[in-house]
Amino acid sequence: VIKKTLSMPPIVTLTTDFGQADAYVAAMKAAVLREAPQARLIDISHQIPPQNVRYGSFILERAIDAFHKMPGRQIIHIAVVDPGVGTSRKLLIVKIQSQTVICPDNGLITWPWRNRKNAKAYELTWRPERSQSKSISRTFHGRDILAPAAGLLAAETPLRKLAPRSARPKLLDIFPMKKNARQGRIIHIDHFGNAITNITREAVGTRHVSIRVGGHAIGRIKQTYAEAEIGEPLALFGSADLLEIAVRDGSAAEKLGLKVGRSVNLSSR
Amino acid sequence: VIKKTLSMPPIVTLTTDFGQADAYVAAMKAAVLREAPQARLIDISHQIPPQNVRYGSFILERAIDAFHKMPGRQIIHIAVVDPGVGTSRKLLIVKIQSQTVICPDNGLITWPWRNRKNAKAYELTWRPERSQSKSISRTFHGRDILAPAAGLLAAETPLRKLAPRSARPKLLDIFPMKKNARQGRIIHIDHFGNAITNITREAVGTRHVSIRVGGHAIGRIKQTYAEAEIGEPLALFGSADLLEIAVRDGSAAEKLGLKVGRSVNLSSR
Amino acid sequence: VIKKTLSMPPIVTLTTDFGQADAYVAAMKAAVLREAPQARLIDISHQIPPQNVRYGSFILERAIDAFHKMPGRQIIHIAVVDPGVGTSRKLLIVKIQSQTVICPDNGLITWPWRNRKNAKAYELTWRPERSQSKSISRTFHGRDILAPAAGLLAAETPLRKLAPRSARPKLLDIFPMKKNARQGRIIHIDHFGNAITNITREAVGTRHVSIRVGGHAIGRIKQTYAEAEIGEPLALFGSADLLEIAVRDGSAAEKLGLKVGRSVNLSSR
Repeated sequence: VIKKTLSMPPIVTLTTDFGQADAYVAAMKAAVLREAPQARLIDISHQIPPQNVRYGSFILERAIDAFHKMPGRQIIHIAVVDPGVGTSRKLLIVKIQSQTVICPDNGLITWPWRNRKNAKAYELTWRPERSQSKSISRTFHGRDILAPAAGLLAAETPLRKLAPRSARPKLLDIFPMKKNARQGRIIHIDHFGNAITNITREAVGTRHVSIRVGGHAIGRIKQTYAEAEIGEPLALFGSADLLEIAVRDGSAAEKLGLKVGRSVNLSSR
Repeated sequence: VIKKTLSMPPIVTLTTDFGQADAYVAAMKAAVLREAPQARLIDISHQIPPQNVRYGSFILERAIDAFHKMPGRQIIHIAVVDPGVGTSRKLLIVKIQSQTVICPDNGLITWPWRNRKNAKAYELTWRPERSQSKSISRTFHGRDILAPAAGLLAAETPLRKLAPRSARPKLLDIFPMKKNARQGRIIHIDHFGNAITNITREAVGTRHVSIRVGGHAIGRIKQTYAEAEIGEPLALFGSADLLEIAVRDGSAAEKLGLKVGRSVNLSSR
Repeated sequence: VIKKTLSMPPIVTLTTDFGQADAYVAAMKAAVLREAPQARLIDISHQIPPQNVRYGSFILERAIDAFHKMPGRQIIHIAVVDPGVGTSRKLLIVKIQSQTVICPDNGLITWPWRNRKNAKAYELTWRPERSQSKSISRTFHGRDILAPAAGLLAAETPLRKLAPRSARPKLLDIFPMKKNARQGRIIHIDHFGNAITNITREAVGTRHVSIRVGGHAIGRIKQTYAEAEIGEPLALFGSADLLEIAVRDGSAAEKLGLKVGRSVNLSSR
């Protein structure tokens, strides 16, 4: 038991729209460590564009994907993109397979919820006692509620003490492309300018398709960037196992003028 | 004793103007870990604008605020915004309540010093032996003196061995607004474009005031962003417990053309 | 033995061109922690310009420099700037003094290899079993091969199990300036706009030289930034012990229009 405690401290990840110029992220980390001194803190991204819940939901799903298969290890993801802070929007704790997500109930959980079976949501109703924190701010629940709650979970507080009742999370109007459909969408532009779509291998199935986006014929689905010439666009299944439009050694978003929401067409070859 | 050592490693935070493209931050972290292998390293910000000591001082105060109330835990903040490196400017170790700050004596300590009682400053006169480091560079005391000193403190070297004599730190010409004054100032623009002022709740007191900044009437002080319409400006006490000018779901700095130093007026309602 | 294990967990650093907006870096960290739960993770830089192997090589050399002299501590650097992912380019494990580098064989290792004696390179031929990972992506070997390999090394897997045969790494056409040469080159522009050259103290030797770059006479080599007036250019040996062209409290790159590759001339005084 001691060995386990020593070698496997809980992991708490952070996904926010806070940027990295201010001390907001550090304030959340301090709040986690106050409750769970042993927690391992991992930054996922703090560059979600301000208030962009859709972008945050995509990144949160990637975080959960990254930390799959960590047997015996507690994984807690805090996600804060929270334009509704101070309104009556709820807070959630969501169990997804063996991982836990803590976030506002504003649609952030959408992608993990749609992509994964057996997810269960609970309303985080716990609030810190006033004597413990200076006071709960009305502008920073990430620091004052979500991070301490993550710390308490990491320190083995039972979930039911923080979130006694189940909840039905709010979901955004975003979906994986349906199996055998002919049109998907761009759901994320990454740092390299790759345009990642909602098109899974399963949705393409055994079809042999040609890809077209924004007036550009991209051709068949390839296996590696190296199958295109330098500067040439291509479509392939990327590291998230989603179809992406890329340009070899370049930015597809820039070269092809791609944006989130743009439709991507699949036609038979 | 063993339990404490295992469960409560010292925390060393870093606040710099180094950016994150180079290996400068990592070089400081290596220097801390060389002396204190168990130290927990927390980045506060590395996006202080180059040589902007005022900005750094505001962020350093937030770092100290974030790590308040961590009983039994050693907290050491390294702050490096150091245009005077290589000149005769001194280095400081400052004890503030139960936390420690290590920084150049160029005004970086101003906000923590003004806001907190019982702070004590010492001149950091310790220098590494030449045989230990390749040589002390004249351009990077953060790596060659401040970080090793933080590591030594984290490894329980007594402060008096590093900084035997007390010091009077240099302070910048920046202050919290006086109680019941009618004019404060913008002291920081954050990642969201919120304009944070030097106006505390205590300085406003029981007055019912209307806020005006840069020709814009902002109205009474509100409690949450949600009391404004989307895109509308408002004033409220933010997460630092300072009055801030915000725009709901937008950037006040951009929308209202706000900058650090701009005056903020309070008139009776 | 227990003490050593507890107090000296292995350090794994990360240098990439992934940026920090996506979850790519976190995916690599999760892959390291899956194999080596105790590993300490240190970010070097994720802001290598996309596909810029030269820039990455310079930063990787700085990372190795930062973690010199950590006796008894295992240091593993993962470097991923990998435009050739999915082609037949090889992967490397390189032992440099007591440190280890894991990277694609595309020239990333050049600066450490040229600057350090007794480096030995091995071809990383280990691949994860298909059953363990979902599948090895063809676009993200950083997550699927390099990070798990680093985790395995950190968990004391013998190097020969991952990389049984030695290799001759590919090297870029970049070199330290030769001893007593009259012309060096700018090899890096840092966050402050300092232009760092390939000119070592040893290569300058005992000569008294005047520096000239891009039509600007910079004068003799100085000791500290403070020897120049504010806004004035100067040349000095910076924290990497390489000659750099700086502007006091400003950006030399901007003020003098400097770029990587530009020649720097040394004439006798």
